[in-house]
Amino acid sequence: MEFQISNRMRGMKPSIIREILKQMSDPELISFAGGNPAADSFPAADIARFSAELLENDPVGVLQYSVTEGVPAAREAVRKFANRHDEVVKDNDDLILVSGSQQILDFVTKCLCNEGDVVAVENPAFLGAFLSFRCYGAKLVGVSMEEDGVDLTELEKVFSANPKPRFFYCIPNFQNPTGRTMSAEKRKAVYELSVKYGVPILEDDPYGELRISGQPVAPIKSLDITGNVIYAASFSKIMCPGMRLAYCVCDKALMKSLVIAKQGSDVHTNVWSQRICAQLLTRTDMDRHIEEIRQIYREKAEYMMRLLDEKCPQIRYVRPEGGMFLWGTLPDGIDMQEFVKRCLERKLAVVPGNAFLVDETQPCQNFRMNFSTPTKANIEKGVEIMAAVLAEMDR
Amino acid sequence: MEFQISNRMRGMKPSIIREILKQMSDPELISFAGGNPAADSFPAADIARFSAELLENDPVGVLQYSVTEGVPAAREAVRKFANRHDEVVKDNDDLILVSGSQQILDFVTKCLCNEGDVVAVENPAFLGAFLSFRCYGAKLVGVSMEEDGVDLTELEKVFSANPKPRFFYCIPNFQNPTGRTMSAEKRKAVYELSVKYGVPILEDDPYGELRISGQPVAPIKSLDITGNVIYAASFSKIMCPGMRLAYCVCDKALMKSLVIAKQGSDVHTNVWSQRICAQLLTRTDMDRHIEEIRQIYREKAEYMMRLLDEKCPQIRYVRPEGGMFLWGTLPDGIDMQEFVKRCLERKLAVVPGNAFLVDETQPCQNFRMNFSTPTKANIEKGVEIMAAVLAEMDR
Repeated sequence: MEFQISNRMRGMKPSIIREILKQMSDPELISFAGGNPAADSFPAADIARFSAELLENDPVGVLQYSVTEGVPAAREAVRKFANRHDEVVKDNDDLILVSGSQQILDFVTKCLCNEGDVVAVENPAFLGAFLSFRCYGAKLVGVSMEEDGVDLTELEKVFSANPKPRFFYCIPNFQNPTGRTMSAEKRKAVYELSVKYGVPILEDDPYGELRISGQPVAPIKSLDITGNVIYAASFSKIMCPGMRLAYCVCDKALMKSLVIAKQGSDVHTNVWSQRICAQLLTRTDMDRHIEEIRQIYREKAEYMMRLLDEKCPQIRYVRPEGGMFLWGTLPDGIDMQEFVKRCLERKLAVVPGNAFLVDETQPCQNFRMNFSTPTKANIEKGVEIMAAVLAEMDR
Repeated sequence: MEFQISNRMRGMKPSIIREILKQMSDPELISFAGGNPAADSFPAADIARFSAELLENDPVGVLQYSVTEGVPAAREAVRKFANRHDEVVKDNDDLILVSGSQQILDFVTKCLCNEGDVVAVENPAFLGAFLSFRCYGAKLVGVSMEEDGVDLTELEKVFSANPKPRFFYCIPNFQNPTGRTMSAEKRKAVYELSVKYGVPILEDDPYGELRISGQPVAPIKSLDITGNVIYAASFSKIMCPGMRLAYCVCDKALMKSLVIAKQGSDVHTNVWSQRICAQLLTRTDMDRHIEEIRQIYREKAEYMMRLLDEKCPQIRYVRPEGGMFLWGTLPDGIDMQEFVKRCLERKLAVVPGNAFLVDETQPCQNFRMNFSTPTKANIEKGVEIMAAVLAEMDR
């Protein structure tokens, strides 16, 4: 039969990155396209040990149904972890464990957005977030990025427009794709605008723990005395992504709706993941583990930047203080799509920058490079491919 | 701040069953309310063994990101399993692994239903399904249940109405809550109506493997030569629910939309669960394991029915051929809500039947009893509590 797809899903396309990754069965292809954490950063031995213990000592507890909000002991361990530097979980907040932080974007939109409503987003930003929002028929309004985060003048304009946005989506730490970090001053200003105009902030912080240089900046959520901020963080980058585990912190009243949304979607999060997470948080030195990951990423990022400076001086980029990505800018006169295509022909995948724009048809000289996944040898080969393509296109 | 909840989620209430279960910290409470599989049915030793092997031999494969559709080897194993008796996965179908079968109900509604659209449902039926549908603003139209499944005259009326339903939701095997099984003739007739009126069928089959008596009836999906049927099945009842794993089979064109919905929701399903499932399906005798589960449930169901017949002859019920539930009918003159309340006061939880109705305010003499979770000793105690309450109310 011919299915009639709903208005909200009609015309939706799969994520370009996931499609690129699916075609990557070619083992010779070097990928700067993904956003996978470095596999050597996984605490695999600890996970194996805790998994064996849990399945030996409490199999029913791991294998039976659990509650939607999350396994109580795991929630408590995550609450302590979230609050170890700054007060992220306030007295009036609740914390839920979810099946990856994408699910938070899904549920927040489900609970706050009617079809046709406006959602304000950093532009460019994480394209998976755009997908989640658009799956509910949200209309995205982009706010430009400056070196130290979102453009405040533009943001106030968007917040004061009629209709006003249902929420503002931002990634303050090592933003995907630009790698930029929102300054402390700007976080305060963004929060104040949120309060002034009554627009909630959806603060997505998947990379916050991955700082490789500079000083930590407290999450916007830590400034939140009014309950305006919905905070999303993930264990994908500091434990592992295959276990699909993330957490959301927000005002208790909103949390009630998010819990119902989760009941209606996947009932509860995989229990094995939650229990492993609780073990890792309470029985290992997570901060030491995080420092080890940082060291891996610091080396890879610096290696990639050094090679880029050396071999591709035409490519500009802002040195990120953390995260997983470099956001390259090609000189005028080099066609970005053609550059990406020629890289792929030489077996290097990068992501065309327009994929991260609210309006993909806008002119764009940017492309995204990931430094967390490739080996150093492949970083070198990849940069050499880019250099060769640039030389070829510069002629 | 005061959050403005979306129209679709405003007024939604949490599942009454989950709320009952959350309050069940009282260890003395006997629950006939849940729908948990018997913990002694979990293949815990095999899961522990396979988990250890996988985390030893292929930690990165288990812990890294994977693809939205599901781990290829797991999908293939599930496809074979699904087709071992009847052809469920047709040439023009695709199969996706999801985080529990509730997620299928979520994504199908997301992809097929606009706000205000009608979804036809068996009435009564699984209340979690009603929740998923209503989270998208669907308007539910109930179709009455007869002994051998849905009322065909009513169903045709609903299918031929204007507007016609976006899909028809049914649980042909050991329906939740009624325990009834749709006859082969009725399955054929329902499928023919689906084709005649162009209304897709969402066939939910979480209990299909749990037959305790009678002869198997092939899924509606096995009759499907037009692609009208979306088939949902779960590993929660034959492996374990904590791992949140289910699968959906449907026409390839629709599957494209479901995959995008999943990308925008939880990206992909927990990899550990998928890999464990593939091991269980390919390296253990699943049919033997399923026969063991059936034997556990057969004994418990028969024990509960025998005690009910003996101690509570006033309660009528249809003997189910499988599943997890008995659907009790109280005699006229016994107020059902009062009965449920008095049982709870004596520390027995059952679910009031109106919770499963499209319109909860309708008069209802039914209540649901689960026989898979309680021990035999607790089944006896629980039935005795019901007998005492009935004696008290009969006065």
